[in-house]
Amino acid sequence: MTNDAFHERLKSQVDSALAGFLKGYPAGSRDGLYDPIHYLMDLGGKRIRPVLALGVCDVEGGPMERALPAAMAVELFHNFTLMHDDIMDAAPLRRGRPTVHVKWDENAAILSGDVMYTLALTALEATPSEALPDVLRMFNATAREVCEGQQTDMAFESREAVDVGAYLGMIRLKTSVLLAASAYMGARCAGASEARAKAWYDYGLHVGLAFQIQDDYLDTFGASGSTGKQVGGDILADKKTLLWLTAEADPEAKPVLDAWKGISPATGTEQAEAKIDAVRAAMLAAGADDVARALMAEHVGAALQSLASLELSADQGAWFEGLAQHVTSRTH
Amino acid sequence: MTNDAFHERLKSQVDSALAGFLKGYPAGSRDGLYDPIHYLMDLGGKRIRPVLALGVCDVEGGPMERALPAAMAVELFHNFTLMHDDIMDAAPLRRGRPTVHVKWDENAAILSGDVMYTLALTALEATPSEALPDVLRMFNATAREVCEGQQTDMAFESREAVDVGAYLGMIRLKTSVLLAASAYMGARCAGASEARAKAWYDYGLHVGLAFQIQDDYLDTFGASGSTGKQVGGDILADKKTLLWLTAEADPEAKPVLDAWKGISPATGTEQAEAKIDAVRAAMLAAGADDVARALMAEHVGAALQSLASLELSADQGAWFEGLAQHVTSRTH
Repeated sequence: MTNDAFHERLKSQVDSALAGFLKGYPAGSRDGLYDPIHYLMDLGGKRIRPVLALGVCDVEGGPMERALPAAMAVELFHNFTLMHDDIMDAAPLRRGRPTVHVKWDENAAILSGDVMYTLALTALEATPSEALPDVLRMFNATAREVCEGQQTDMAFESREAVDVGAYLGMIRLKTSVLLAASAYMGARCAGASEARAKAWYDYGLHVGLAFQIQDDYLDTFGASGSTGKQVGGDILADKKTLLWLTAEADPEAKPVLDAWKGISPATGTEQAEAKIDAVRAAMLAAGADDVARALMAEHVGAALQSLASLELSADQGAWFEGLAQHVTSRTH
Repeated sequence: MTNDAFHERLKSQVDSALAGFLKGYPAGSRDGLYDPIHYLMDLGGKRIRPVLALGVCDVEGGPMERALPAAMAVELFHNFTLMHDDIMDAAPLRRGRPTVHVKWDENAAILSGDVMYTLALTALEATPSEALPDVLRMFNATAREVCEGQQTDMAFESREAVDVGAYLGMIRLKTSVLLAASAYMGARCAGASEARAKAWYDYGLHVGLAFQIQDDYLDTFGASGSTGKQVGGDILADKKTLLWLTAEADPEAKPVLDAWKGISPATGTEQAEAKIDAVRAAMLAAGADDVARALMAEHVGAALQSLASLELSADQGAWFEGLAQHVTSRTH
C-alpha cells in the first residue's frame, strides 16, 4: 500500500467512527446545541492527529481500533479549540466558510464549544481500561498546554519584545503537543511501554514544530496555487511569525518592518502587494528564509532520530518517515 | 458533632485540597491564564457539591479522601460553568463582585474557563483507579447535561410557550444533575455498588431540584434580610421561573403578567416596587406559591425515600436528612 493510500484508509476509519459517534448527538436536538459541532466537523480537514494515533497504534501491535477513542477525542478537542480560538481571534472564516460565532453567535460558539470538549472526553472513555489512566493524564496535560499556548499567542499581540525562542515555545504549546500526544496515546493504547510512547511523543512533537514553521514559511514564500490560500496574509496582518521575528532582529530589516507595521491594506490592492514585496525582501535580506528552512530541517532530523530509536522495520517506518519528510519537500 | 460542624469540617477539607491543587497553577504565571480562576475560587461559596461527595464517600465506608479528586473536580467544573454562563448571560456581578469577563475581558473568561475545565479533569485523574472509568463516565455525562440545560435556558428567553414541565426539565439538567453526580461519585469512590450509587444519585437529584425551586421561591417570597439579596429580582427581569410559569397558565393572572412584561424599572424605584407587588399578588392569586411549596415537598420526600432505601443507621443518615429538610425549613 502506498503512503497516501495508508493515510486515506486511516482517515476514512476516523471519519466513519466520528460520524457514528456524533449520531448520538444529532443536529436539531437539544435546542440546536449540537448543530455547530456537525457544521464544523463537516468542514473537513486532514485529520492528521487521529490518523497519527491510529498509525502508531497499528505499528505498535494494534489492533488500531484500540486507539479509535483517543483518535476521536483529539480530533474533537482540536476542533473545539478552533471554535473558541475563532471567537477570541475574531476570525470571520474557517476553511472558507463562516466561523461558528459568525454563522450563529458568540454564545452558541462558547457553549457548543464547551460541550464539544465534553464529547471529546466522552469519546475517550472507551479507551482500553488498562491504558485509560495514563491516556487521560496525557490528554489533560496536553489540553492545558494548548490553552497556555493560546494565551501566550494572544499576549504576544500586545507585547513589544517577542524573541524567536519565545515564539517557538508558544507554537510548541499551541500546536505541536497535540500531535505529540496523539502519537503517545496511540502507542499506549497498543500496550507499548512508556519509554516507547515517549519516543513517539518526541517524534510527534518535532513533526508538529516542523509543520508549523512550514505553515508560516509557505504563507510568505509559497506559491498561492499550491497552498490554496493567498500568500502574504501573515505579512499583511503583521503576524509575529518566525520570519517576522528573525527579520525584526536584523538591524537593516527592522526599519522596513517598522515602516509597514500597522498599515493594513486590503488583500489584492496595490498597496498590499507593495507591503508584501517590501517585507518579503527585507526577510530575505535578513536570511529569515534560511533560518526557517534550517529550523525545519533540524526538527525533521530530530523526528527521524526519535523514529530510528524505535527500531521499526523499514516497511513499518516508511509512512512515518514520509510524514516527517513531507515537510521539507514542500518548501521548494 | 452537629450537622453544621460536620459540613464545616468537610468544607475546610475541600478548600484546603483546592488551595493545594491550585498552587500548581499560580496566579501571574502563563501570561495570567490562571488569574481569573484564583479570583473566582476566592469569591467563596458553600461548596455544597464537593461536601456532598465527601459526605457520601464517608458514610459508604470511606475514607473520604478517596473522593477528594472527584470533589475538587465538581467544584472546579461548577465554577467553570459560572465563568462561561456569566459571559452568555452578560452578568455584571457574581457574589457582589465583577464577573471575570467584566474584570478582565471576554477572551480571558473564555480561555481561563476552558483551562478551568481542564483542571477539573486533571483533579479527577487521582480518583482510585478501579473507580476511575465509571466516575469519568458519570462526570462526562453530567457535564454534557449541564451544557444542554444552559442551552435550553437560553432558548427559553426567546420562546413564547414554556410550560412548567419544560422548566423542571431544564433545571434538572442545569443544576440538579451535578449535585446528583457528586453524590454518585462519592459513593463509587468508596467502592459502593452501582445500585447504591444510583440511590445516592436520586437523593442528590431531588435535593437539587428542591433547592432550585426554593431559590426561585425565596427570590419572590423571601425576606431580603434572610437571603442577603434583593427580593423580586426574578420578577423585574421577567424570568420564567416556576412561579411565573404557573401564574402565566392562570387566565386571571396572565393579563397582569402580560401588562408588566418588558417593563424593566431600576431596582428600588417606585415603579419597581409596583411591578413586584402586582406580579407577586397575581402569583399568589394563581396559587403559584402553593404549587412551588408542594413541588419542593415532593422532591424533599423523594430524596428522603431514596435515603431510606440506603438503610443507613440513624446516626449516619442524620446529616443527609438535615440537608434535604433544610429546604422546607427555609420557605417560611
